Amino acid sequence: MDANRLKALLEQVRAGAVTPDDALEQINTLPFEELGFAKVDHHRAVRVGVPEVIFGPGKAPEHFLEIFTRLAERGNNVLATRGSEEQVALTLARFHMAEHNQLARTLVLRQNREKLGKGIIGIISAGTSDIPVAEEAAVTADVMGNDITRLFDVGVAGLHRLLSHSKELRQARVLVVCAGMEGALPSVVGGLVAVPVIAVPTSVGYGAAFGGIAALLGMINSCASNVSVVNIDNGFGAAYVASLINRI
Amino acid sequence: MDANRLKALLEQVRAGAVTPDDALEQINTLPFEELGFAKVDHHRAVRVGVPEVIFGPGKAPEHFLEIFTRLAERGNNVLATRGSEEQVALTLARFHMAEHNQLARTLVLRQNREKLGKGIIGIISAGTSDIPVAEEAAVTADVMGNDITRLFDVGVAGLHRLLSHSKELRQARVLVVCAGMEGALPSVVGGLVAVPVIAVPTSVGYGAAFGGIAALLGMINSCASNVSVVNIDNGFGAAYVASLINRI
Amino acid sequence: MDANRLKALLEQVRAGAVTPDDALEQINTLPFEELGFAKVDHHRAVRVGVPEVIFGPGKAPEHFLEIFTRLAERGNNVLATRGSEEQVALTLARFHMAEHNQLARTLVLRQNREKLGKGIIGIISAGTSDIPVAEEAAVTADVMGNDITRLFDVGVAGLHRLLSHSKELRQARVLVVCAGMEGALPSVVGGLVAVPVIAVPTSVGYGAAFGGIAALLGMINSCASNVSVVNIDNGFGAAYVASLINRI
Amino acid sequence: MDANRLKALLEQVRAGAVTPDDALEQINTLPFEELGFAKVDHHRAVRVGVPEVIFGPGKAPEHFLEIFTRLAERGNNVLATRGSEEQVALTLARFHMAEHNQLARTLVLRQNREKLGKGIIGIISAGTSDIPVAEEAAVTADVMGNDITRLFDVGVAGLHRLLSHSKELRQARVLVVCAGMEGALPSVVGGLVAVPVIAVPTSVGYGAAFGGIAALLGMINSCASNVSVVNIDNGFGAAYVASLINRI
Amino acid sequence: MDANRLKALLEQVRAGAVTPDDALEQINTLPFEELGFAKVDHHRAVRVGVPEVIFGPGKAPEHFLEIFTRLAERGNNVLATRGSEEQVALTLARFHMAEHNQLARTLVLRQNREKLGKGIIGIISAGTSDIPVAEEAAVTADVMGNDITRLFDVGVAGLHRLLSHSKELRQARVLVVCAGMEGALPSVVGGLVAVPVIAVPTSVGYGAAFGGIAALLGMINSCASNVSVVNIDNGFGAAYVASLINRI
Amino acid sequence: MDANRLKALLEQVRAGAVTPDDALEQINTLPFEELGFAKVDHHRAVRVGVPEVIFGPGKAPEHFLEIFTRLAERGNNVLATRGSEEQVALTLARFHMAEHNQLARTLVLRQNREKLGKGIIGIISAGTSDIPVAEEAAVTADVMGNDITRLFDVGVAGLHRLLSHSKELRQARVLVVCAGMEGALPSVVGGLVAVPVIAVPTSVGYGAAFGGIAALLGMINSCASNVSVVNIDNGFGAAYVASLINRI
Amino acid sequence: MDANRLKALLEQVRAGAVTPDDALEQINTLPFEELGFAKVDHHRAVRVGVPEVIFGPGKAPEHFLEIFTRLAERGNNVLATRGSEEQVALTLARFHMAEHNQLARTLVLRQNREKLGKGIIGIISAGTSDIPVAEEAAVTADVMGNDITRLFDVGVAGLHRLLSHSKELRQARVLVVCAGMEGALPSVVGGLVAVPVIAVPTSVGYGAAFGGIAALLGMINSCASNVSVVNIDNGFGAAYVASLINRI
Amino acid sequence: MDANRLKALLEQVRAGAVTPDDALEQINTLPFEELGFAKVDHHRAVRVGVPEVIFGPGKAPEHFLEIFTRLAERGNNVLATRGSEEQVALTLARFHMAEHNQLARTLVLRQNREKLGKGIIGIISAGTSDIPVAEEAAVTADVMGNDITRLFDVGVAGLHRLLSHSKELRQARVLVVCAGMEGALPSVVGGLVAVPVIAVPTSVGYGAAFGGIAALLGMINSCASNVSVVNIDNGFGAAYVASLINRI
Repeated sequence: MDANRLKALLEQVRAGAVTPDDALEQINTLPFEELGFAKVDHHRAVRVGVPEVIFGPGKAPEHFLEIFTRLAERGNNVLATRGSEEQVALTLARFHMAEHNQLARTLVLRQNREKLGKGIIGIISAGTSDIPVAEEAAVTADVMGNDITRLFDVGVAGLHRLLSHSKELRQARVLVVCAGMEGALPSVVGGLVAVPVIAVPTSVGYGAAFGGIAALLGMINSCASNVSVVNIDNGFGAAYVASLINRI
Repeated sequence: MDANRLKALLEQVRAGAVTPDDALEQINTLPFEELGFAKVDHHRAVRVGVPEVIFGPGKAPEHFLEIFTRLAERGNNVLATRGSEEQVALTLARFHMAEHNQLARTLVLRQNREKLGKGIIGIISAGTSDIPVAEEAAVTADVMGNDITRLFDVGVAGLHRLLSHSKELRQARVLVVCAGMEGALPSVVGGLVAVPVIAVPTSVGYGAAFGGIAALLGMINSCASNVSVVNIDNGFGAAYVASLINRI
Repeated sequence: MDANRLKALLEQVRAGAVTPDDALEQINTLPFEELGFAKVDHHRAVRVGVPEVIFGPGKAPEHFLEIFTRLAERGNNVLATRGSEEQVALTLARFHMAEHNQLARTLVLRQNREKLGKGIIGIISAGTSDIPVAEEAAVTADVMGNDITRLFDVGVAGLHRLLSHSKELRQARVLVVCAGMEGALPSVVGGLVAVPVIAVPTSVGYGAAFGGIAALLGMINSCASNVSVVNIDNGFGAAYVASLINRI
Repeated sequence: MDANRLKALLEQVRAGAVTPDDALEQINTLPFEELGFAKVDHHRAVRVGVPEVIFGPGKAPEHFLEIFTRLAERGNNVLATRGSEEQVALTLARFHMAEHNQLARTLVLRQNREKLGKGIIGIISAGTSDIPVAEEAAVTADVMGNDITRLFDVGVAGLHRLLSHSKELRQARVLVVCAGMEGALPSVVGGLVAVPVIAVPTSVGYGAAFGGIAALLGMINSCASNVSVVNIDNGFGAAYVASLINRI
Repeated sequence: MDANRLKALLEQVRAGAVTPDDALEQINTLPFEELGFAKVDHHRAVRVGVPEVIFGPGKAPEHFLEIFTRLAERGNNVLATRGSEEQVALTLARFHMAEHNQLARTLVLRQNREKLGKGIIGIISAGTSDIPVAEEAAVTADVMGNDITRLFDVGVAGLHRLLSHSKELRQARVLVVCAGMEGALPSVVGGLVAVPVIAVPTSVGYGAAFGGIAALLGMINSCASNVSVVNIDNGFGAAYVASLINRI
Repeated sequence: MDANRLKALLEQVRAGAVTPDDALEQINTLPFEELGFAKVDHHRAVRVGVPEVIFGPGKAPEHFLEIFTRLAERGNNVLATRGSEEQVALTLARFHMAEHNQLARTLVLRQNREKLGKGIIGIISAGTSDIPVAEEAAVTADVMGNDITRLFDVGVAGLHRLLSHSKELRQARVLVVCAGMEGALPSVVGGLVAVPVIAVPTSVGYGAAFGGIAALLGMINSCASNVSVVNIDNGFGAAYVASLINRI
Repeated sequence: MDANRLKALLEQVRAGAVTPDDALEQINTLPFEELGFAKVDHHRAVRVGVPEVIFGPGKAPEHFLEIFTRLAERGNNVLATRGSEEQVALTLARFHMAEHNQLARTLVLRQNREKLGKGIIGIISAGTSDIPVAEEAAVTADVMGNDITRLFDVGVAGLHRLLSHSKELRQARVLVVCAGMEGALPSVVGGLVAVPVIAVPTSVGYGAAFGGIAALLGMINSCASNVSVVNIDNGFGAAYVASLINRI
Repeated sequence: MDANRLKALLEQVRAGAVTPDDALEQINTLPFEELGFAKVDHHRAVRVGVPEVIFGPGKAPEHFLEIFTRLAERGNNVLATRGSEEQVALTLARFHMAEHNQLARTLVLRQNREKLGKGIIGIISAGTSDIPVAEEAAVTADVMGNDITRLFDVGVAGLHRLLSHSKELRQARVLVVCAGMEGALPSVVGGLVAVPVIAVPTSVGYGAAFGGIAALLGMINSCASNVSVVNIDNGFGAAYVASLINRI
């Protein structure tokens, strides 16, 4: 029951067309989503400019396309992550303007290019193998209306590579740092800057890397206080958090 | 070698008092901290107004007091976390103005009450047992110059308690959410707001809670995209990140 | 030795046709399953109307068909879970009336449509990816003679979706709640109802979801007291427990 | 805003004392707990006769007593679990009628002895060391208004002990089974009965028992389909679920 | 119902004093332990000469003494493991002949010195810190009527210590090998002999030894095929298995 | 240096053909395998009648065949486990008499049918899915010269199936018990017999079975004292240990 | 800014062509890699003769070839590890002199055969399945200019195989020991020598070997003090460390 | 049988006093430790100058003193680690010259001050809380005859602290790096130097640091190839390995 419907009901009460008891009954049984709070939820999507997002894995290609189409009709940007070859091909056939980033495994339909972020989001990767995750973050941040800077392959075992970019580091308003193996990069970066660092453990590594657990543990235990962490390989989530920060 | 010393050296080069070769030698062997970059680090502390922080565990009481004293002399706010009874007693004897919060296990010396945060930081706890961690976050956010709102004991098993505070939720610019056991609260809160949520798993729980691992895993796997996570019981770290965000 | 055979033996003892010593020997060496207790086991299957169940993985297709056929001959409902494409095709060729649910990966032969459950079993899923597990639960509950209500895609990050169905939640006599990722939904549902909640962690998620462990831990540590848990992806088991409860 | 208050508001609208717009504002901003749903929550406590429960650990003795007192004033049964010596002593000094069960570590104030359960709840323990957990379950089930049967020390390594009680097993409407070490008892019991079995892993064991993890894993993987599981040592939770089932 | 009672019942049936129907009823409802199988269980204790065993932890001292006394009255050897100081003192005050082994934390009452084992059981420990576990095994094997040889402090990092005892190794009929840290000794011993090796991981070690898990994993993965494993620190269990083997 | 060579050397010393110093040098530098101890190792293989064993995984088919051929030439039985299709086909083409057991994934060449075991080895499996592991144990025990009894599909959730075979259980001299899921069967069997039980956790199960870890933990924590454990799915190892016991 | 450029700047300062202020600005903003420290990094590669290394997984074949080519042009040895079939074929087509070791999965271009190591590196493997990892170590050590000795298949279950090579063990200056399963070999080897032992856990094993975790834990907990450990299957890393030691 | 005894035996053979057969018997049955190999072991201790080491935990104070005394009598340096207050007090009462380092928890008796290491061992700690472990390493390296440099409190979150010591880093021949929390320091250090780095994870940290596991995993997965790892808090072991390297 949205505000209009609720107000109409109250008008009917005032007019005597509905008794207070009947109105009480209607209010008590109406679905929650029609109350004010749920609407806020709806307004939120509009207000914050979050793109509509589709997570590809486990969806039938036709289902994927159908959701993509429905979302596109709302006029917002549409972002699909981790789409399969089949999902992507089917969707590209319909949406010629969609941009497919193979490295990031993203499919994006830009319908709105408003700049919503107020500063620069730095996207950093430790090694070349972490780049797909970092690219997912970059595409997400971009489609959410942010300026971004990429610093790739600046892992801690060759510190000079990172330090030579200290200027870019200091210019960012928030940083997304992707690293696998021991996941030490966010701690080092966190110590060099005075802004929030969103750490993304990646599943890069072998042996006792355990698909990203070692990196996740390293980041959660970071000795730098400005580091918070998202799930393994979750470049999208990190960029989403960074975008919210950059809009403040 | 700070800027002044480096400039003095360059002046000497210009004056012919030092040869370029000798200057080169001096620059190459000077400690890194005296170069520009390290100085930035120093400036950072001043610029962002981060309080000087002491982590109590493992320090001898006299050592604790000595560090506290030295930090206090700089004129900034001083924050000590998890101080032992002995550390706190010794320090309070010297610093009568220091505020000891037993619940949060913090000791604070306020020497600067400038408001640095631009909005409100919401500090939320799932159960009453999570309050010590939430209080550590609240004290930290406060001493770092933020306005805060506390919402305690609003766990997911009694949803109406949380929902009745939807207004406060929506007014916060960033949220710190502390929860133990299954750690579900950040996901629920994350779904209700459009701002960053910093999740703090607490070691509250028993049996298979494993000292906070269950909550940590739950939060890292949150289905809400605006959630990032810090270490178990790390109320300080969460508030630190939130403060950086609130200063943007 | 069933009751009849034992009674016949006792009659022979009374008649003097068998000595007590020989009878003692026979009783001591007869297989346990022929004693009263084992028979209860047999009666139980009949009494509780549990369908005959086949778990597909690891069985040769012909073996699968043979078991299916043998069970079908008893006249009860037959339920096969997680049958392979080959197992299902072979069986459908013989049993044209069997119903194959691709989503739930179930194959059902309905030979008995008696309503055994006394109330409604609510089957709830957090996300669309959890639906296969929820459907396995739904098919199981249905074939065991229950009325069911499905509430799918009502995860905690969009609370209004769940809350708008509070009426259906309150009408159920027992609930099966399937969720992956952080597994928070059973806690939230458990707080909204006064009936038993059977939680099913699903292997949905990525990164640190660890194939359902995060969800399992979350559910075992639920802060709602009316939640108990079954194995990861075990929709069948949850519906089985729910059916027993619904028959009380 | 409870029904009365909301109705009063609607009456004011009808009477013209409040405009629809003002009423709309009031409804949209009133705390959720005063809407219908939250009230249901309140009614639930009354309707299902759940005792008020206090979890002792981490509470100051005076705080413990204060909560106990407040709950007692509502006239319901009060159950406190895992109270410390100090908490219990302080409370007993005020509530002479409270019953302290040292084994179960429970403190109970019976103010209502209505029988709410319709059948018998069987409480089973594998070894003598599991008895504290089983007793917590027994006290909980008792205070929630159920008839109970105790079968203690009937672990699987001496099967005849369990089998000699097959009659009691079959008479129960629902069973709570507590076991540590390998946690095999629920599987065996589950195979002997046709009712729901709530399994409670206990932290009993040593070496690789890992404080109950081995038992928890065993029970979650039970080959008996009528078994669901609660947290390690959570006798209270198991009895709570069993009580809900027994009230159906 | 033991054989005599069952035979008496059958005699009554023959005599016409009990009808077959009444006899059937009695047989069906008699406790299982009185049937033949349970008796076997009883006979087993007698036949195999297993001592009566009490596991100390968690028992009140008076309870401990009471069980000890009751077992002692049967005339068998009594073995108590891991008794507390208080349990042991109380029991020694009553049983002056009981032998307390502080290292092994055992209390033994020898009432039967019959030699039941046919060969020698070798008890081996890797380091001096593993000796308490090895001694528990030694005392257990001794009280179960076996000849034993002790080889202590023969860990793999000083191979010559072990190899210099190759003769004793080869003379044993079965070996119990206790080791902590990496738990490598059973593999090495297993490669040197042609008899069963029972491996006991001990909780000795630090850091990543994880209370015996590293040793347990090492032993379960042993490359020697004649190694089987018992629980961490379970010297009693290993000696129990070894004794059964030595009686064959 | 075998005995003959060493004796020849000593003869040369006696004859004065080699000086004591030169002999000392030769003895000190000769490879260990030629000393007495290593020879014992060789004798052991002959004495205990252990078949030559080849573990298939990771070997090139030609390499597999070559080893098989070399071992066959010694005249002993040859046992290959977990051979690939290709390894087996290649080997069968050369060794027409070899027996391939598809279920157990074994390939056996019987060249010696001497009965070396003195009693019966019971091979027990909990479910039908555990049979491949149990069969590996059965084939191994058979080729090592033992009489065996198979009891398959007697899991704990249908206790009467196991109990009806109590006679076979009691006749075995040692038991191998294979179970997946919660791994409870060895505990139950262990409580019914007075002989050693070798427990084999299998990787059967799903969800939180973790490829056999749950069963492994269950068995290591068995409350029956006569149970020891081998690696997950290691039917060969269990039968090997059982064979050594059965030869005593 | 390398030394030359910095010196040129200083010369300009001396010549008055650049003011000290401008020079200060240039020095403060120049990228770190151009300072002395980074150059050391560059010199290091030259000085220690480390080959240029490419890690194959995750690289497109053309990308792999391109890096290989670029590295080859510097005239150093080039080592590629874990190249895919496609990567290797493409590269071999261009570099006919490159040596492909299928077992070690290495591709090596030798352009420099200088002997850099001063002693012998012993490369030891426990079983035949560990040989690929050991070979990766051997190739790495060889291409880094070391003499090596291979001791393969000398696992602890057949100790005489290892002991017969005591002479080779004692001649090595540093040892790399590769073992899977329980990973006991480094402890045994460590006890026999007085030089550093680099332990490499391998993913060889099954069941509870957990892909090398059991071996890793065993090695980290080694009772031999001269053992340090690298990642699972990381033969390259172990040889790299050993080479650095051998150059001292 | 040492060389002298063996030679004497051979002399007797030559003299005809012992027959070759009798000599053969004696040689075959003599304990291994008396053969050449074991003696090498003994020589090794002398040759490499390893101090005699006592690990305190679990030893009775008198036992501790007795071992200390016995070792001291050999004239070598004696090192005791992790001695309890009682062990240390008792030993100091007898050995007034022994040096007790409270921070490192070491007790050292210097009887030999020969410099055995050829270069400098750098001992580095990330935080102040890691210093006890680093000091244990420093004392060990010192007592084993090495020159050492300490770099304490140079963790990665304040990189300039480490970089300002680049000269000391480059002068060391081998480095021991101690770090807790995320354990990132060895990776960073490893990237700055061209010598072996021995990483020591410490149990410093809280929450998900898991007593050093996070740091251990981080170090094992280090992206720097010159890093190898010892057990958690094992400063002694790291310095032992470093000392062996420094003697080369």
